[in-house]
Amino acid sequence: MTDEREMGGPIRVGVLGARGRMGAEVCKAVDAAADTTLVAAVDQGDELAAVADAGAQVVVDFTTPGVVMDNLRWCIEQGIHAVVGTTGFTEQRLDQVRDWLAGKPGVGVVIAPNFGIGAVLMMQFAARAARHFESVEIIEQHHPRKLDAPSGTATHTARLIAAARAEAGLGPVPDATADEVAGARGADIDGVRVHAVRATGLVAHQEVLFGTTGETLTIRHDSYDRVSFMPGVLVAVRAVGNRPGLTVGLDPLLD
Amino acid sequence: MTDEREMGGPIRVGVLGARGRMGAEVCKAVDAAADTTLVAAVDQGDELAAVADAGAQVVVDFTTPGVVMDNLRWCIEQGIHAVVGTTGFTEQRLDQVRDWLAGKPGVGVVIAPNFGIGAVLMMQFAARAARHFESVEIIEQHHPRKLDAPSGTATHTARLIAAARAEAGLGPVPDATADEVAGARGADIDGVRVHAVRATGLVAHQEVLFGTTGETLTIRHDSYDRVSFMPGVLVAVRAVGNRPGLTVGLDPLLD
Amino acid sequence: MTDEREMGGPIRVGVLGARGRMGAEVCKAVDAAADTTLVAAVDQGDELAAVADAGAQVVVDFTTPGVVMDNLRWCIEQGIHAVVGTTGFTEQRLDQVRDWLAGKPGVGVVIAPNFGIGAVLMMQFAARAARHFESVEIIEQHHPRKLDAPSGTATHTARLIAAARAEAGLGPVPDATADEVAGARGADIDGVRVHAVRATGLVAHQEVLFGTTGETLTIRHDSYDRVSFMPGVLVAVRAVGNRPGLTVGLDPLLD
Amino acid sequence: MTDEREMGGPIRVGVLGARGRMGAEVCKAVDAAADTTLVAAVDQGDELAAVADAGAQVVVDFTTPGVVMDNLRWCIEQGIHAVVGTTGFTEQRLDQVRDWLAGKPGVGVVIAPNFGIGAVLMMQFAARAARHFESVEIIEQHHPRKLDAPSGTATHTARLIAAARAEAGLGPVPDATADEVAGARGADIDGVRVHAVRATGLVAHQEVLFGTTGETLTIRHDSYDRVSFMPGVLVAVRAVGNRPGLTVGLDPLLD
Repeated sequence: MTDEREMGGPIRVGVLGARGRMGAEVCKAVDAAADTTLVAAVDQGDELAAVADAGAQVVVDFTTPGVVMDNLRWCIEQGIHAVVGTTGFTEQRLDQVRDWLAGKPGVGVVIAPNFGIGAVLMMQFAARAARHFESVEIIEQHHPRKLDAPSGTATHTARLIAAARAEAGLGPVPDATADEVAGARGADIDGVRVHAVRATGLVAHQEVLFGTTGETLTIRHDSYDRVSFMPGVLVAVRAVGNRPGLTVGLDPLLD
Repeated sequence: MTDEREMGGPIRVGVLGARGRMGAEVCKAVDAAADTTLVAAVDQGDELAAVADAGAQVVVDFTTPGVVMDNLRWCIEQGIHAVVGTTGFTEQRLDQVRDWLAGKPGVGVVIAPNFGIGAVLMMQFAARAARHFESVEIIEQHHPRKLDAPSGTATHTARLIAAARAEAGLGPVPDATADEVAGARGADIDGVRVHAVRATGLVAHQEVLFGTTGETLTIRHDSYDRVSFMPGVLVAVRAVGNRPGLTVGLDPLLD
Repeated sequence: MTDEREMGGPIRVGVLGARGRMGAEVCKAVDAAADTTLVAAVDQGDELAAVADAGAQVVVDFTTPGVVMDNLRWCIEQGIHAVVGTTGFTEQRLDQVRDWLAGKPGVGVVIAPNFGIGAVLMMQFAARAARHFESVEIIEQHHPRKLDAPSGTATHTARLIAAARAEAGLGPVPDATADEVAGARGADIDGVRVHAVRATGLVAHQEVLFGTTGETLTIRHDSYDRVSFMPGVLVAVRAVGNRPGLTVGLDPLLD
Repeated sequence: MTDEREMGGPIRVGVLGARGRMGAEVCKAVDAAADTTLVAAVDQGDELAAVADAGAQVVVDFTTPGVVMDNLRWCIEQGIHAVVGTTGFTEQRLDQVRDWLAGKPGVGVVIAPNFGIGAVLMMQFAARAARHFESVEIIEQHHPRKLDAPSGTATHTARLIAAARAEAGLGPVPDATADEVAGARGADIDGVRVHAVRATGLVAHQEVLFGTTGETLTIRHDSYDRVSFMPGVLVAVRAVGNRPGLTVGLDPLLD
């Protein structure tokens, strides 16, 4: 594969799962950005070969757990970098991808469970702030059709915070509650209280509140739309060519 | 009692419980306001008569449940209006006060559990908004030394909202939660979810979140200090002379 | 027109401007609600008569200033109630509508510049709170494609607050600013400071902040979507049959 | 100086300016913390020697620009570490302190304009987030007795953000405003819009709002009290013994 990027052209991108909800948004975003160009949009029933024929340098995969591994093996064999938003990656699957990449040293793969830059930074900042505040709670707010409470992002944030507190030698969060109506103090996730609010009109929001003597620090993320993932996908598309091997999560690309 | 107010002078105020935390603040506030003047500051061991001798038109009582009823009977007998922040008023006690007042038609008494204008308006607006939104939740936030969760104000707000929803014929708040870590969805107060956040640095805060298709309305109250009750006490001091009989709560004085 | 509603059926609604952005949403909302049914969807080139033929009891008009007056005259003549979201109503136009209605005593017309229940309540509550707080400022937040700053809603809210303050005899908001970088303190609308924030990702948000000694009260409205107007349109559709004559604004329907 | 800390005892602290507003709070905080002990409280008229006599390992200086340089020279000569909150440090003064320290390699000095951990982290996170979002605005909120608008912290934050944007090659923040009431869009600090809200009841608050397609990230700091600086002072007291030379700002101690 000629590195056309170094030659100054836009990055040539192929999208797998191009007719899915997310894939369709990726096609639009790749099209709209000045430094990327959409060269192939592939979905169920289409030939993967179309991607190679079109000279794609990077593939973005928003397909399904059932087909993503075959897609990845093929991309790596072809020397095409991959950015993957498809879910279902176990440690075993990640190891398999690492194996494949070991045989193709120049190729990069970014697999991320969450391409929202705001959400990723919120978690990063929360983990960094955690050891400086004796108190911390999480309030996440979503539309009422959501099945789980708290959200996966809130649970993950709580665990990052709990780990940072443990590492810093912080004891339990102070709490004199003696008389509680069941549930008022939220769910206990590794010692961090998490509150899940559900209301019509909301989309996806999360607030991490830190407190110490006389002051609080709040980190809040509001996501209004699934297009909020697109800037993160583009960050990965731009970076993957310079990151041989496997990168898990958007985090390392934002530093 | 001569109505010196009509004669243009400031309202003459006596404070009972003047050396207590709240009473001391009332003394300062009455002193600082242009249209009120502190004429007597009485506490345990002092004679109530000092208040009448000083020509007080209005008494503010922040004492204790054990002495407040005797204070009130005496004030009403003397024809002195009273503004009462002391706690512990049962329906039975209120009826007793109404009885005493029946015999003194010109005298007014205001008894309020909460003199925070912001808190009272928050509850008033919440009750008014309730029937226009299919979703509603309450998030209250306090310092971690607080013993009860949720706060009395949050519980009271939830009940007002529940009553307004019932009156408007609204059904249950929509909530598809199927998989909940215990407590995540908060306490259930008459069908309204209430979340209690506790963190060092916080004072006393409450947010009522209403949601309907595509929009939310949030009413938030932040109290930073016990001096936040003083504007409400002054509202009552100014109004009580024109409200013969018993007034319960600050609400009717704010309309 | 037989009052089918009293006979227990859903309200029969015709939509004018049915293929426009807002009209299309109204069609969907009327269709989805249990107590309303869409009987006619009319746009440019269609015959108004279709609305009468379909037995519409209420017409919703989201058309243009150029045609709305003709539509209204026709509806009133036919004895069909009207809910109007079309803009451009001057005092002169409103008087004309009142004239037409005078000849048809049973017919109701609701004309509202804003059908967002949340926005209307925000303004209502702000006007009610205004005289109880010495400080008040407005922060509105919108997407960066917006041309005017501050928004029409923020300007209108500021005027309502200023009028309420004047009526209550409140003086100017306290402000010791002596050293200001131009613009830092916002726009001055009748003595109320208004700040306009613009950022990608935002939709339409407004916060009214009231402050007095030791406490603040915040009323915040977040609109995520133009569907946020639909609950307000339905409130008007349900109410207009019982409000003969002209009603301006959603306000009186929410009390 | 024997390192008593390594021997397991609490850090021995002397306070200069001990009767000042901030100094008095430092004395209380040092006294209250388990791992620090107050051994000398010195103010105008007292002998500095008392600090050495008491075996202080660390001095905290909240005095005045007129005396702080003499205090520092003396501490460094004595081999006592210093944590300085006194204002007025020019580059010239900092160079002088570096000179003195060059002759005493084991001694550490921390000079910080702001000991609020929350404020320092807010600025740090804002600088880190800046290059990932096309939009950013700052809203600071203070009591109405404040003379400058925007606050020094807001101006400093805006400059950090502007520098980060420039480094990342970001262009101007998008803004289509064509029709502005003067001041609505805030002050322009290096291309970042800053809004200063003033209201009775507020203490000191700042919000940094970042926006990109479909999402926003907000970092908010609320300071309720000057005691909010104490945790930061203690962080510096604990760290200064292990940081020979000059450290400017709390930032490097929080990483």
